[in-house]
Amino acid sequence: MQAKQILETCLYVDELVEAEAFYSSVLGLLPFSRVEGRHVFFRCGNGVFLLFNAAQTQQSTGAVPPHGANGPGHVAFAMQEDDIPNWREHLRQNGVTIEQEITWPSGGYSIYFRDSSGNSVELATLKTWGL
Amino acid sequence: MQAKQILETCLYVDELVEAEAFYSSVLGLLPFSRVEGRHVFFRCGNGVFLLFNAAQTQQSTGAVPPHGANGPGHVAFAMQEDDIPNWREHLRQNGVTIEQEITWPSGGYSIYFRDSSGNSVELATLKTWGL
Repeated sequence: MQAKQILETCLYVDELVEAEAFYSSVLGLLPFSRVEGRHVFFRCGNGVFLLFNAAQTQQSTGAVPPHGANGPGHVAFAMQEDDIPNWREHLRQNGVTIEQEITWPSGGYSIYFRDSSGNSVELATLKTWGL
Repeated sequence: MQAKQILETCLYVDELVEAEAFYSSVLGLLPFSRVEGRHVFFRCGNGVFLLFNAAQTQQSTGAVPPHGANGPGHVAFAMQEDDIPNWREHLRQNGVTIEQEITWPSGGYSIYFRDSSGNSVELATLKTWGL
Protein backbone atom coordinates (compact mmCIF):
# COMPACT_ATOMS: atom_id res chain seq x y z
CA MET A 1 0.00 0.00 0.00
CA GLN A 2 1.26 3.46 -0.85
CA ALA A 3 -0.09 6.94 -0.08
CA LYS A 4 0.10 8.73 -3.42
CA GLN A 5 -1.00 12.23 -2.50
CA ILE A 6 -1.07 14.53 0.51
CA LEU A 7 -4.63 15.70 1.06
CA GLU A 8 -4.40 17.88 4.19
CA THR A 9 -1.53 20.13 5.25
CA CYS A 10 -1.99 21.79 8.66
CA LEU A 11 -0.55 24.62 10.66
CA TYR A 12 -1.52 25.97 14.06
CA VAL A 13 -2.12 29.65 14.66
CA ASP A 14 -2.82 31.78 17.73
CA GLU A 15 -5.30 34.03 16.05
CA LEU A 16 -7.57 32.68 13.31
CA VAL A 17 -9.07 35.93 12.03
CA GLU A 18 -5.64 37.46 11.39
CA ALA A 19 -4.40 34.20 9.92
CA GLU A 20 -7.36 33.94 7.53
CA ALA A 21 -6.68 37.48 6.34
CA PHE A 22 -2.99 36.67 5.91
CA TYR A 23 -3.43 33.51 3.86
CA SER A 24 -6.25 35.04 1.82
CA SER A 25 -4.46 38.24 0.91
CA VAL A 26 -0.80 37.19 0.89
CA LEU A 27 -1.08 33.67 -0.53
CA GLY A 28 -4.34 34.22 -2.40
CA LEU A 29 -5.95 31.10 -0.89
CA LEU A 30 -9.73 30.68 -0.82
CA PRO A 31 -11.26 29.91 2.58
CA PHE A 32 -14.21 27.53 2.28
CA SER A 33 -14.97 26.49 5.87
CA ARG A 34 -14.54 28.05 9.29
CA VAL A 35 -15.57 27.41 12.87
CA GLU A 36 -14.98 30.54 14.90
CA GLY A 37 -12.13 30.08 17.33
CA ARG A 38 -11.33 26.56 16.10
CA HIS A 39 -10.27 26.47 12.44
CA VAL A 40 -10.33 27.94 8.96
CA PHE A 41 -9.85 25.73 5.90
CA PHE A 42 -8.57 26.73 2.46
CA ARG A 43 -8.45 24.97 -0.88
CA CYS A 44 -5.05 24.78 -2.53
CA GLY A 45 -4.40 22.78 -5.69
CA ASN A 46 -5.53 19.17 -5.27
CA GLY A 47 -5.57 19.38 -1.48
CA VAL A 48 -6.60 21.53 1.46
CA PHE A 49 -4.63 23.77 3.80
CA LEU A 50 -5.97 23.72 7.35
CA LEU A 51 -5.32 26.31 10.07
CA PHE A 52 -6.24 25.27 13.58
CA ASN A 53 -6.21 26.81 17.02
CA ALA A 54 -4.25 24.15 18.92
CA ALA A 55 -5.91 24.95 22.26
CA GLN A 56 -9.22 23.86 20.68
CA THR A 57 -8.07 20.85 18.65
CA GLN A 58 -6.16 19.41 21.64
CA GLN A 59 -9.51 18.84 23.39
CA SER A 60 -10.88 15.30 23.21
CA THR A 61 -14.42 15.86 21.99
CA GLY A 62 -14.84 12.46 20.34
CA ALA A 63 -15.66 14.16 17.03
CA VAL A 64 -12.16 13.71 15.60
CA PRO A 65 -8.91 12.52 17.20
CA PRO A 66 -7.24 15.35 19.13
CA HIS A 67 -4.06 16.99 17.81
CA GLY A 68 -2.39 20.37 18.20
CA ALA A 69 1.19 21.58 18.28
CA ASN A 70 2.75 24.71 19.75
CA GLY A 71 5.59 26.69 18.26
CA PRO A 72 6.35 27.73 14.68
CA GLY A 73 5.55 25.13 12.04
CA HIS A 74 6.51 25.24 8.37
CA VAL A 75 4.80 25.00 5.01
CA ALA A 76 5.98 25.63 1.45
CA PHE A 77 3.86 26.60 -1.53
CA ALA A 78 5.00 26.19 -5.11
CA MET A 79 5.86 29.28 -7.16
CA GLN A 80 6.71 29.63 -10.82
CA GLU A 81 10.29 30.72 -11.52
CA ASP A 82 9.00 33.61 -13.65
CA ASP A 83 6.96 34.84 -10.69
CA ILE A 84 9.85 35.35 -8.25
CA PRO A 85 9.98 39.16 -8.77
CA ASN A 86 6.17 39.34 -8.73
CA TRP A 87 5.99 37.52 -5.38
CA ARG A 88 8.68 39.81 -3.93
CA GLU A 89 6.69 42.85 -4.97
CA HIS A 90 3.40 41.32 -3.76
CA LEU A 91 4.92 40.57 -0.33
CA ARG A 92 6.27 44.13 -0.14
CA GLN A 93 2.87 45.58 -1.02
CA ASN A 94 1.29 43.46 1.73
CA GLY A 95 3.82 44.63 4.32
CA VAL A 96 5.36 41.16 4.63
CA THR A 97 9.07 41.12 5.45
CA ILE A 98 11.16 38.58 3.58
CA GLU A 99 13.25 36.70 6.16
CA GLN A 100 15.56 34.88 3.77
CA GLU A 101 16.02 33.93 0.11
CA ILE A 102 17.95 30.85 -0.91
CA THR A 103 19.27 29.51 -4.23
CA TRP A 104 19.50 25.73 -3.91
CA PRO A 105 22.16 23.48 -5.49
CA SER A 106 19.29 21.97 -7.55
CA GLY A 107 18.75 25.38 -9.20
CA GLY A 108 15.60 25.86 -7.13
CA TYR A 109 14.81 29.12 -5.39
CA SER A 110 13.02 29.85 -2.09
CA ILE A 111 11.61 32.94 -0.43
CA TYR A 112 10.88 32.69 3.31
CA PHE A 113 8.65 34.86 5.47
CA ARG A 114 6.48 34.54 8.60
CA ASP A 115 2.70 34.29 8.82
CA SER A 116 0.69 36.30 11.38
CA SER A 117 1.43 33.66 14.07
CA GLY A 118 5.14 33.24 13.36
CA ASN A 119 4.95 30.07 11.25
CA SER A 120 7.69 29.82 8.64
CA VAL A 121 6.12 30.12 5.19
CA GLU A 122 8.11 29.43 2.04
CA LEU A 123 7.50 29.98 -1.64
CA ALA A 124 9.69 27.60 -3.62
CA THR A 125 10.13 26.72 -7.27
CA LEU A 126 9.50 23.09 -8.29
CA LYS A 127 13.18 22.77 -9.23
CA THR A 128 13.97 22.99 -5.51
CA TRP A 129 12.87 19.35 -5.26
CA GLY A 130 13.67 18.30 -8.80
CA LEU A 131 9.95 18.31 -9.60
CA MET B 1 -0.84 36.43 -6.74
CA GLN B 2 -2.07 33.01 -5.76
CA ALA B 3 -0.30 29.93 -4.39
CA LYS B 4 -1.61 27.08 -6.54
CA GLN B 5 0.00 24.05 -4.93
CA ILE B 6 1.38 22.96 -1.59
CA LEU B 7 4.96 21.81 -2.08
CA GLU B 8 6.11 20.90 1.45
CA THR B 9 4.03 19.38 4.24
CA CYS B 10 5.87 18.99 7.56
CA LEU B 11 5.51 17.15 10.82
CA TYR B 12 7.82 17.02 13.83
CA VAL B 13 8.86 13.74 15.40
CA ASP B 14 10.85 12.78 18.50
CA GLU B 15 12.65 9.91 16.90
CA LEU B 16 13.58 10.04 13.22
CA VAL B 17 14.72 6.45 12.70
CA GLU B 18 11.44 5.04 13.99
CA ALA B 19 9.46 7.67 12.08
CA GLU B 20 11.28 6.86 8.81
CA ALA B 21 10.46 3.18 9.30
CA PHE B 22 6.83 4.06 10.06
CA TYR B 23 6.20 6.27 7.02
CA SER B 24 8.14 3.90 4.73
CA SER B 25 6.38 0.73 5.77
CA VAL B 26 2.93 1.96 6.79
CA LEU B 27 2.38 4.76 4.23
CA GLY B 28 4.73 3.32 1.57
CA LEU B 29 6.56 6.65 1.15
CA LEU B 30 10.02 6.78 -0.38
CA PRO B 31 12.67 8.60 1.68
CA PHE B 32 15.11 10.51 -0.54
CA SER B 33 17.11 12.67 1.87
CA ARG B 34 18.12 12.44 5.50
CA VAL B 35 20.41 14.22 7.93
CA GLU B 36 20.87 12.05 11.00
CA GLY B 37 19.12 13.52 14.01
CA ARG B 38 17.65 16.45 12.03
CA HIS B 39 15.31 15.31 9.27
CA VAL B 40 14.12 12.74 6.79
CA PHE B 41 12.35 13.77 3.58
CA PHE B 42 9.93 11.71 1.48
CA ARG B 43 8.40 12.19 -1.95
CA CYS B 44 4.62 12.05 -2.12
CA GLY B 45 2.68 12.86 -5.28
CA ASN B 46 3.64 16.28 -6.62
CA GLY B 47 5.12 17.42 -3.31
CA VAL B 48 7.36 16.38 -0.45
CA PHE B 49 6.60 15.25 3.09
CA LEU B 50 9.18 16.42 5.60
CA LEU B 51 9.80 15.01 9.07
CA PHE B 52 11.91 17.15 11.37
CA ASN B 53 13.32 16.92 14.86
CA ALA B 54 12.06 20.21 16.30
CA ALA B 55 14.93 20.51 18.80
CA GLN B 56 17.30 20.73 15.81
CA THR B 57 15.25 22.91 13.46
CA GLN B 58 14.53 25.45 16.23
CA GLN B 59 18.25 26.35 16.25
CA SER B 60 19.19 29.49 14.32
CA THR B 61 22.02 28.28 12.11
CA GLY B 62 21.55 30.83 9.35
CA ALA B 63 21.14 28.03 6.80
CA VAL B 64 17.34 28.22 6.78
CA PRO B 65 14.87 30.12 8.97
CA PRO B 66 14.27 28.29 12.26
CA HIS B 67 10.96 26.52 12.91
CA GLY B 68 9.79 23.63 15.05
CA ALA B 69 6.61 22.78 16.93
CA ASN B 70 5.96 20.50 19.88
CA GLY B 71 2.93 18.33 20.39
CA PRO B 72 0.94 16.16 17.99
CA GLY B 73 0.48 17.59 14.50
CA HIS B 74 -1.79 16.28 11.79
CA VAL B 75 -1.54 15.19 8.17
CA ALA B 76 -3.93 13.44 5.80
CA PHE B 77 -3.06 11.35 2.78
CA ALA B 78 -5.51 10.53 0.01
CA MET B 79 -6.84 7.00 -0.31
CA GLN B 80 -9.00 5.42 -3.00
CA GLU B 81 -12.49 4.42 -1.84
CA ASP B 82 -11.90 0.88 -3.13
CA ASP B 83 -8.81 0.62 -0.96
CA ILE B 84 -10.50 1.22 2.41
CA PRO B 85 -10.55 -2.51 3.37
CA ASN B 86 -7.01 -2.94 2.00
CA TRP B 87 -5.70 -0.07 4.14
CA ARG B 88 -7.43 -1.50 7.23
CA GLU B 89 -5.77 -4.85 6.66
CA HIS B 90 -2.42 -3.22 5.88
CA LEU B 91 -2.54 -1.22 9.14
CA ARG B 92 -3.45 -4.36 11.08
CA GLN B 93 -0.56 -6.28 9.52
CA ASN B 94 1.79 -3.44 10.52
CA GLY B 95 0.54 -3.45 14.09
CA VAL B 96 -1.01 0.02 13.73
CA THR B 97 -4.12 0.60 15.85
CA ILE B 98 -6.96 2.48 14.16
CA GLU B 99 -8.01 5.28 16.50
CA GLN B 100 -11.19 6.33 14.70
CA GLU B 101 -13.08 5.95 11.42
CA ILE B 102 -15.48 8.61 10.19
CA THR B 103 -18.06 8.78 7.41
CA TRP B 104 -18.42 12.44 6.44
CA PRO B 105 -21.64 14.19 5.31
CA SER B 106 -19.90 14.64 1.92
CA GLY B 107 -19.78 10.86 1.51
CA GLY B 108 -16.06 10.89 2.23
CA TYR B 109 -14.43 8.41 4.57
CA SER B 110 -11.48 8.77 6.96
CA ILE B 111 -9.32 6.35 8.92
CA TYR B 112 -7.22 7.86 11.74
CA PHE B 113 -4.19 6.42 13.51
CA ARG B 114 -1.01 7.67 15.22
CA ASP B 115 2.54 7.71 13.87
CA SER B 116 5.50 6.59 16.01
CA SER B 117 5.67 10.05 17.66
CA GLY B 118 1.94 10.45 18.32
CA ASN B 119 1.08 12.68 15.35
CA SER B 120 -2.47 12.19 14.08
CA VAL B 121 -2.32 10.58 10.63
CA GLU B 122 -5.40 10.27 8.46
CA LEU B 123 -6.21 8.42 5.28
CA ALA B 124 -9.16 10.08 3.59
CA THR B 125 -11.02 9.67 0.32
CA LEU B 126 -11.11 12.63 -2.07
CA LYS B 127 -14.87 12.86 -1.57
CA THR B 128 -14.15 14.05 1.99
CA TRP B 129 -13.31 17.43 0.49
CA GLY B 130 -15.48 17.24 -2.61
CA LEU B 131 -12.35 16.67 -4.71
